[in-house]
Amino acid sequence: MLYSNLTVNEQGHLAFAGYDTVELAKKYGTALYVIDEDKLRENCRMYIDAMEKHFGGGAMPLYASKALCFTEIYRIIAKCGMGTDIVSSGELYTAVKAGFPLEKAFFHGNNKTDADIEYAIKNGLGYFVVDNEEELDAISEIAGAYGVMQKILLRITPGIDPHTHKAIMTGSVDSKFGSAIETGRAYEMVEMALSGSNIVLKGFHCHIGSQIFECDPFCDAADIMLGFVAEVKKRYSFKTELLNLGGGFGVRYTEEDPYIDIDANIAQVASHVKKRCEEFGVDMPKILMEPGRSIVANTGITLYTVGSVKEIGELKNYVSIDGGMPDNPRYALYGSAYTVMLANRAEEKADFKCSIAGRCCESGDLIQEGVMLPRPKRGDTLAVLVTGAYNYSMASNYNKIPRPAVLLVGKSGERIAVRRETFEDLCLLDN
Amino acid sequence: MLYSNLTVNEQGHLAFAGYDTVELAKKYGTALYVIDEDKLRENCRMYIDAMEKHFGGGAMPLYASKALCFTEIYRIIAKCGMGTDIVSSGELYTAVKAGFPLEKAFFHGNNKTDADIEYAIKNGLGYFVVDNEEELDAISEIAGAYGVMQKILLRITPGIDPHTHKAIMTGSVDSKFGSAIETGRAYEMVEMALSGSNIVLKGFHCHIGSQIFECDPFCDAADIMLGFVAEVKKRYSFKTELLNLGGGFGVRYTEEDPYIDIDANIAQVASHVKKRCEEFGVDMPKILMEPGRSIVANTGITLYTVGSVKEIGELKNYVSIDGGMPDNPRYALYGSAYTVMLANRAEEKADFKCSIAGRCCESGDLIQEGVMLPRPKRGDTLAVLVTGAYNYSMASNYNKIPRPAVLLVGKSGERIAVRRETFEDLCLLDN
Repeated sequence: MLYSNLTVNEQGHLAFAGYDTVELAKKYGTALYVIDEDKLRENCRMYIDAMEKHFGGGAMPLYASKALCFTEIYRIIAKCGMGTDIVSSGELYTAVKAGFPLEKAFFHGNNKTDADIEYAIKNGLGYFVVDNEEELDAISEIAGAYGVMQKILLRITPGIDPHTHKAIMTGSVDSKFGSAIETGRAYEMVEMALSGSNIVLKGFHCHIGSQIFECDPFCDAADIMLGFVAEVKKRYSFKTELLNLGGGFGVRYTEEDPYIDIDANIAQVASHVKKRCEEFGVDMPKILMEPGRSIVANTGITLYTVGSVKEIGELKNYVSIDGGMPDNPRYALYGSAYTVMLANRAEEKADFKCSIAGRCCESGDLIQEGVMLPRPKRGDTLAVLVTGAYNYSMASNYNKIPRPAVLLVGKSGERIAVRRETFEDLCLLDN
Repeated sequence: MLYSNLTVNEQGHLAFAGYDTVELAKKYGTALYVIDEDKLRENCRMYIDAMEKHFGGGAMPLYASKALCFTEIYRIIAKCGMGTDIVSSGELYTAVKAGFPLEKAFFHGNNKTDADIEYAIKNGLGYFVVDNEEELDAISEIAGAYGVMQKILLRITPGIDPHTHKAIMTGSVDSKFGSAIETGRAYEMVEMALSGSNIVLKGFHCHIGSQIFECDPFCDAADIMLGFVAEVKKRYSFKTELLNLGGGFGVRYTEEDPYIDIDANIAQVASHVKKRCEEFGVDMPKILMEPGRSIVANTGITLYTVGSVKEIGELKNYVSIDGGMPDNPRYALYGSAYTVMLANRAEEKADFKCSIAGRCCESGDLIQEGVMLPRPKRGDTLAVLVTGAYNYSMASNYNKIPRPAVLLVGKSGERIAVRRETFEDLCLLDN
């Protein structure tokens, strides 16, 4: 199995975090998101420990909330001692509601509205990661109105292509995010930040993309960013306190994906960063990273019920489930790979090749194509693995389908973190 | 301009259905969906009149709700005298709430759960469009339990490739929908339906895809389906009462798309159908069609506010708005074309080539690339045109961004059909 929280029990059922998934499906209904909260804490600890150990004191992972965001997750993250990266006032509201210590929150995004900025400042946000000039001006003005000295990082575009999917590649110069070093724009932003009123520049942020399996792109990004840090020191005598290297490491979705040793990778990046700091003659800044996917992906699975099986001559077989692109749009959007299995027949021979179709009236509503299963039948429980990231957070009500519940399971028991939407909920805003 | 409801007023602002869009943006905030309800009624009437005129009595368009679904739209559609095509219990619930006459409702979808079927039968649904054998069995059983004789159509796959986008192509043999004539499966389904208890077979349905601009695919589908109707008459002495030809005609999103004369096209399809019925020696069934996109697309625009403008050397320009893939995922999903303009500077020279970026922390969050605008600045109102279909209905809360309000405007005034989501709404289901 892909991860240690996935096992097969005596009934031949898929167990997740020790829970019989067929029982969970029966008890809570499907579609159902299930999150292993012990694994979540373990993943948080792994990043916190590795970063402290290899980068030294002050280094900190920030949980990238957009991967999976609801009130309880901020409580869990806060207890682990992690910071957080938020991308909207909606995420900020949720963090505030959870009592998350906002001094450890970093507000991202390429377009913060005046309302976002005011809301964040009023709530004592730690840092804005400033994307552009318009935003810098707005923060300066609003911080001034509130008599606040607002800490910021500047988002810098290092110009790295990390060979990942186009939609999740963010570090190349042609990006909607940040200011490029190459074009000189990054230096202009530093000058503006240093001379701006009610603004305290603390350092820099870059993000080279998502789903990265090697150290090299991070080391390359560190090279470029530390060169920039050195140049900024030289030009403006500015000491960079914080350097945020962006994302976390890639996630193993299928047997074909490599294993990643997070600790070993962070050790390697840290040793590279230390060496480069010496070479560039700069003090090592406190290093931040923003794992989201690699914190939550393997903490989640989604359970569905099979509705129909269609064998079309020699052509293809379709297995329809009671969910689909509304609860997991990633195959429709990116063609993302997932591992699929029949939870109630986990040990049977998987000799039936099929595509997993969602229930929407749309041909593109597929969860995965060409997977091998025991031939399913109506009523079987189908599990899609490693769905903790970017499933619940991207869910829609397309075809007016209610969003599934999010169930937390772990050694301390099971509890609903987000209850299932009802039809009444779907029409709550209608006049 | 693309449609008659789009004009420029004396202030040089984009007007929609006669309303100054800059004023609407100011009054209701952005992002904002605006729907022209007079145009909606006009589009309904156009289909109703053309179908009655050319196909004769009993022909009826069914509004494909999934294109845009909220309570008030069912009230409008009902008043126009249209039927509806619904695809889930959520849509059914909404129709019931609106007081829609359910005898005119057709329940679609490749995977209806037992709960869906029971809910629909309890509420007096007109017709199921039965996709597969498992569903047929379930309807028979549940209708039996309720003592109901349930009317159905069978969904047949004609095997047509209408040269449209892969994700919205539904009529080819390799499809998750329906039963193929080619493989013989369609006849097996007819036999099962005719012998099933508590089931009344009324006819057949096919759907060849979406965004079709010519008559030919519909005529080809009619040829195949009428051949099937004739064969079914011969084999089983079954008289087909209803023949549903699926979707409506394509929609003009940009200047490059052709104009479509719906009346002329329906006239042509009708004349073809009549001729073929004579040739095949079958009585002409009552014809149904299911326009969704072509009923609502041009009734809608989306208004946004510009947040930042980024010029990256010679490479590219990005204009960031306060919305994006959460309220309109169609460019991210399909690369769909849209017409974009600056609503507050509608007459200025559009000489600035740019990509319209959403506010999500994701590179793929784009609304459109390579559009021409007057160089925008923070605070400008940006309008994306022809967003009535598959925008609100596909919207998510990705990045925890609240969904925009839906505002109806028309000669009878302006009113909120769906109010804007609040941050409180976003956490309503959280424990």
